[in-house]
Formats: sequence, C-alpha cells, structure tokens
Amino acid sequence: MSDLKTLGQTGLEALEQTLVTRYEGFREQELALDMTRGKPSVRQLNLSNAMLEYPGVTDYTADDGTDCRNYGGLTGIPKMKKLFADLLEVTPEQVVVGGNSSLTMMHDALVRACLFGVPGGEGPWVHQGPLKFLCPSPGYDRHFAITEHLGFELIAIDMTDSGPDMQQVTAAVSEDPSVKGIWCVPKYSNPTGVTYSEEVVQALAGMQIAAPDFRIIWDNAYAEHYFSDKPDELANIYAACVEAGNEDRVLMFASTSKMSLAGSGVAALAASPTNIEDALKHLAVQTIGPDKLNQLRHARFFGGIGGLRAHMRQHAELIKPKFDLVHDVLYEELDGKDIATWTKPNGGYFVSLDVWDGCAKQVIQLAADIGVNLTNAGAPFPYGKDPHDHNIRIAPTFPRREEIKLSMEVIAVCIQLVAVRQLLGKSHNSQDAD
Amino acid sequence: MSDLKTLGQTGLEALEQTLVTRYEGFREQELALDMTRGKPSVRQLNLSNAMLEYPGVTDYTADDGTDCRNYGGLTGIPKMKKLFADLLEVTPEQVVVGGNSSLTMMHDALVRACLFGVPGGEGPWVHQGPLKFLCPSPGYDRHFAITEHLGFELIAIDMTDSGPDMQQVTAAVSEDPSVKGIWCVPKYSNPTGVTYSEEVVQALAGMQIAAPDFRIIWDNAYAEHYFSDKPDELANIYAACVEAGNEDRVLMFASTSKMSLAGSGVAALAASPTNIEDALKHLAVQTIGPDKLNQLRHARFFGGIGGLRAHMRQHAELIKPKFDLVHDVLYEELDGKDIATWTKPNGGYFVSLDVWDGCAKQVIQLAADIGVNLTNAGAPFPYGKDPHDHNIRIAPTFPRREEIKLSMEVIAVCIQLVAVRQLLGKSHNSQDAD
Repeated sequence: MSDLKTLGQTGLEALEQTLVTRYEGFREQELALDMTRGKPSVRQLNLSNAMLEYPGVTDYTADDGTDCRNYGGLTGIPKMKKLFADLLEVTPEQVVVGGNSSLTMMHDALVRACLFGVPGGEGPWVHQGPLKFLCPSPGYDRHFAITEHLGFELIAIDMTDSGPDMQQVTAAVSEDPSVKGIWCVPKYSNPTGVTYSEEVVQALAGMQIAAPDFRIIWDNAYAEHYFSDKPDELANIYAACVEAGNEDRVLMFASTSKMSLAGSGVAALAASPTNIEDALKHLAVQTIGPDKLNQLRHARFFGGIGGLRAHMRQHAELIKPKFDLVHDVLYEELDGKDIATWTKPNGGYFVSLDVWDGCAKQVIQLAADIGVNLTNAGAPFPYGKDPHDHNIRIAPTFPRREEIKLSMEVIAVCIQLVAVRQLLGKSHNSQDAD
Repeated sequence: MSDLKTLGQTGLEALEQTLVTRYEGFREQELALDMTRGKPSVRQLNLSNAMLEYPGVTDYTADDGTDCRNYGGLTGIPKMKKLFADLLEVTPEQVVVGGNSSLTMMHDALVRACLFGVPGGEGPWVHQGPLKFLCPSPGYDRHFAITEHLGFELIAIDMTDSGPDMQQVTAAVSEDPSVKGIWCVPKYSNPTGVTYSEEVVQALAGMQIAAPDFRIIWDNAYAEHYFSDKPDELANIYAACVEAGNEDRVLMFASTSKMSLAGSGVAALAASPTNIEDALKHLAVQTIGPDKLNQLRHARFFGGIGGLRAHMRQHAELIKPKFDLVHDVLYEELDGKDIATWTKPNGGYFVSLDVWDGCAKQVIQLAADIGVNLTNAGAPFPYGKDPHDHNIRIAPTFPRREEIKLSMEVIAVCIQLVAVRQLLGKSHNSQDAD
C-alpha cells in the first residue's frame, strides 16, 4: 500500500468512505473484545492445572523438614529460594520468597523506605521533603501508580531500543538528591518488549548518583517469558552493582504469576545482604511468614529452574501465534502507509504500537465505540499522560485468536480512519481536552 | 497444701531441698520442651488435610463465575466475604478478604494511617508529631511490636476480667489527641482468655475521644475458638459504634489461621463503608488481588459459618484436654500455697499465669535452664517489660499431652522454688538487671 500522504484529496475521500464502511460493518457485529490487560489466557492457565490438587494430603513437608501447614519461615522454603536465586542470578541467601504478588513486594519495599529509610540513607524518605522517581516510558502503569500514590514526582525517561535513555537518567540523578529511584522492567519490557543492553545495565549500576539511598527497582517480571527462537540476554545487574561498589543500589523482584496461576503465584525479593537484613527487620513485624504451602506447590510443580524453563516453552507455544497474528494484521493493513510503527518483541506480554502524534486517544475511542477495548491512552506514561498522544498498548495473550484478529482489524481501520481524517483536516480533537 | 508463708524456716528449707531434688531430676531428663507460641498442633492441622488437594483440577470457579486462577478480584470471592461477614457480624460489602495473615492486614492498615491518614482525620499520622497507642496488657506481643516499630509510644492499660480497664482508657483518650488507637483481642483475649463485657464494648464504641481519627483495632482472632461447654458472648462492636454515631471508629480483623492451616489461612478486614472505600483506594495500588484459589479452598472446605463452627468443635476436642491438663497440674502442685494464680479460659490459645511480683523472670529462667522454654518474661507487655515481673504466658496447644504435663510440672517446681527462696531471703535478682 502507498503512503497515505501521497494520496490526493479525492483518493483520501474515497479511502475514508471505504474505511467508514468497514468500521460500520464491525459495529453491526456488536463486538465486545478486550485487549487491555496482560493476563494469561485460559489455555495458559490450564498448563498449571495439576497444581490445583497440590501438594496432596500427605505431602506438606519442605526439604528442611518444615511442616508447611504451620506458622513461620519468614524467608520462604529452601527450594523456592533456590528457584528464584537461579532466576535472578543471585544466591539463595539473598532471596526472600513472599506471597502472591511481586507488585505488593515492590510497594511494600517503597513504603518501608518512606517510613524507615534504607541502608546508606539519611532516614525516612517521608521526612526528606518532595522526592522524585524516574519512570522509563512507556512503562508499567501499576509501577508509576505506586510512586504517584506515595507522593513522588514522576519523572518521565524516554525508552530507547536498549533500555531507558541513559543520558536523561544520568542527568536526572547526578546532582539532584531528591531523585530516589528508577522503575525498570529490564527484560521484554512492559510494553515495548525491549531488553536492556549490557551497556545500559552497566551504566545503571555504575553511574554517579547524588542521593546516597537511590534504589533501582528491578522488576524482572518476564525473565523467562520468551517466545522467539532465541531468548534475549540480560546482563546481571547485581553483579554489575557489586563490581561498581554499589551492591545496595538494586532491589530485584520476580514472580511466577505469569508462569503458574496468575492470581496464586509466588513472588520474591532479592538484594544485597545488607538490604535483605534491613527488609527482614521490618517484615518480621509485618508478618509471621508467607503461605508456605503455595510455595511447596510451586517447588513440586517446577522442580527447579530447568523444569520452569520447560514449562515456559509451553506458554511460548500458546503465546507466539498470538503475537504473530498481531503483527500480521498490522503489517497487512498498515505496511507502507507511514501511519504506524509497532514492536515485534522476542518475549513478554505486550506489543507497543505508535501512531501519529495526537492520534492515539482518537483511535482508542473509535475502537471503544464499537466494542474493542484497549488500554487507556496514556496509561503507560507518568500520570497517565502520553506527551505525544501516540502510544497504544496491545495485550494479546488473554483473548482467543479470532478475537485478536478481529480486534487488530478494528484497530487498523481506526488508525487509518483517524489518519485520513487528519489529512483531510477533519481531525476530532475533542478527545484531547482532558 | 498449705500457704508457703505459714511454713517456718525449717519447713521452707526442707521444701527447698525437696524441690531442688525434683528440679535436678528434671534436668537429668535432658528436656527440650517448648511452651512459647500459640500454634496449632499437628493433630489440629491434620483436621484440615483435605484442603491440601483442594480445589481440585477442574474446580477453580467462584460462585460469581470468576476464574480464581487469574488476576483480579480485590475484595475477595463472594463466599469468603459472606463467611467473614457472618463471623464478624457485618455485611459482606463491609468485608475485604485478603491473604494469609490478619497481622499483615492490621500492620498495613496502620501503615496506611501513618502515610495517608484515615477518614475523619487530619492527614497522615506521620506528620502529626509523636503519637500514642493504647495496649491492654498483658496482650499480644506482635500487636505491640507493630505500633512500637511504627514509632508510637505504647501506653499500657490494665486488663480486667471484663476487658481493658475503661477508666484508664477513657482517661487516656478523652483529652489527648495524640492517642490514636487501641489494640483489642476482644474474645478469649491473648493471653488472659477474657471476653470483653457488653459494658466494655459499649464504652469503647461510645466514649468521648480527643483524636478525630482514633481507631479500635479489633482483632477477633478467637471468635470461634471456644472449648468450654458454652461459648462466651461478645457484643457486636460495629453495631455499638453505629448506634453511638461512631461507625468509622473500629477496624475489625479475623483469619482462619487457627481454624484451617496456620501458615496458609485466609484473613479479612471489616469496617464501615467509608473505611472500606478508603482502604480499597490504597489496596488497589498495593496489589492486583489476593490469592483467590486459597479463598476457594476455604470456601469449599468450610461451606459456611455452620461448617466452620462444626470444624471448630473438632479443634475444641483436641485442645480442651490440654488446657485441662495445664490447670490440673497447676492445681495439684500449687493450690492453697498462695504463690500463683492462673486463668481457666473458655476458649482461645493461652493460659495466663501470675506469680509473685518480681518472680516471673526467675521462674522462666529456671525452667529454661533445664530445657523448658516459655514465652519471654514481659513479652505480653509494651516494650517487653512486665512492670510487676509477675506474668507468664502458657501456650499449651502445640505440644503433646505428655510434654505439657512435664512442662507444667517443671514450671510448678520452679514457681515454688523461687517462692521458697524468696521467703528464705535467697532470691536471685540477677535476672532483673536488664
């Protein structure tokens, strides 16, 4: 297809009519499709159904002899500490295995920093005046929400193909001690699919930072979630921090939520011995211990990191065709028209789609009007505001393939319709008012 | 037996020798007994072993159609909301069902108050200067630890046979707005076994309080944990608060930890609509949702409040003989000697034993020296300091009956030995130094 901008007025008007006809055709189907959230599909969940009768009525003892039914065991059972240690490339002693949510563990780590401070710092963050947090964008809306809720000013950092723009990051942290941390999804990043380069990892670990108690929140949510032929390689951030003499700089998180059962997974925190000791001092007051039976279920189900990786291949077989379908429809509909670009990730849960500046809200609204729900425009940006209003997050894992195909066709028609109308001077700007 | 104080010097010296002989006899047995923590026994845990293969591989859907395997559902599944509503005598809409720990839910509620304030208040507690919290004592050490950790000054309130001394409570709250709350275990209280009287509940609900954002932390941990013939009756604190026009005053908590499997239970918060709305605003940032599969396990296992109560009768059958044994040994060894008093609770997890002022540490140390571990002296008091050094908490549920019998004999011998030596002017005061 040809670049829309090369079409004349007549060509554009004809195209608009064709698109409107298709759009109204979709409307008649009374669609109710949802491409909003990064949730595993029913078939993915089925992969772990064996866990639904684990550990079994006679099997409740961890390898160290702990009766997992009773109280206690603040840091988790040995096999799960080992599993997360292998996943995050640290030692089991550096791991605290928790409940069902790594998001909660990140939230609570920042709450502790606010109320009590962190090792190397100068007391509670809550007493240090207005503070800032770096948000590589587009990024994960729930990350940004935590720091917004806790009162941080959110500083947008552009995402590049190799991670956050390190020029912007170093400029932000080098002289301003009120910048306390940065959110990172370092592998198959949400939503761009980017894996941080070795250079970016090294730079994050080694950069000069004005705040003595800066923390990298390293949410390795998609560490094993690849569906391409070859997994991306991510440098070991903790090793890099140790090497640079900054071992307390990073707090690492992971969970099995998108590996086993999303609502009932197991999450973990890993960090330097000093950070772990500090966290445990507070955790011992917050809880008697995590749900060890759910940890036991996971330990038995995965066996170890090898079993986990084999299991993730099964997820990949279900996920890859869906990502291929997203790409294929967009390519078929939009290639060569110069109105959209999109990512083709090797792993993770999202496709990040960029349209012309000022057009994302209109596209999302047009799609919503005929029953195709997309993540709110701007959601992957601080304060929910996409400064260019051009990014659309596509979450293709949960819907069935027919639903994805239809949704993507609707989206492609909406993108073209908005572009054509923009070229015709008919742009709907009412959506930009809020 | 006769009051020790009626024995003459010779009688006391003879008794001391008899007790030392018994004590050394126990030492030779190389005991390793633990009466420290309120944990269910293995036989109690076995009552819930069926849950270890719940919900089963085809059974993962809640009554409202929710796939419990996936993300979402911030307030819990309907059947568990109903169960806790019945337990706490509120409506299901007032209930948020959470993870495996009511202690964590209480901790987090106070953390939210510190960081964000509560409805009716004047902003974050952390910005309101030094604050105080009322601690009916003896009470639950982990409660006091939370408020100590969060920086509150802990104000000890004496426990009476009908609940906290309300004269002390009203005096503390009526004019000092820095007093922000009170810890309550209102039924079969930890460790005294007291159930708050109707008058105390009414007084707590209706009393004049200087702080506009005072909160009663109502930890109804033992709501259904009776093992006598007839359960105690506890007045409905929420109804009393509503009646008094103070419906936002109380935050209620419960959990199944000591009903199903202690490390893998389900906990809940219940409160006024305003408080619940406030909590959810923050919880939505902290988590995507609780472990719904564990909630489903519990919903299926208990069925409803009737099934739960039937299950608790099975616990009672296992627990009651242990409490009887504690009483019987103490009665056999100490009755009439005027050296100790102890509770004979209708439910709960503890016996509270009072010895002569200044003697508890010595008794606990003597017992520990020959392998019988008791809860640290002072643990049930603010800052771990029993002002009279007279209280010993006995936790009889976890050990086997032979262990309890032996432990209680050791304790009874130690109590007598300390008392006799005190009367002989041989008291060991070294333990009082810290």
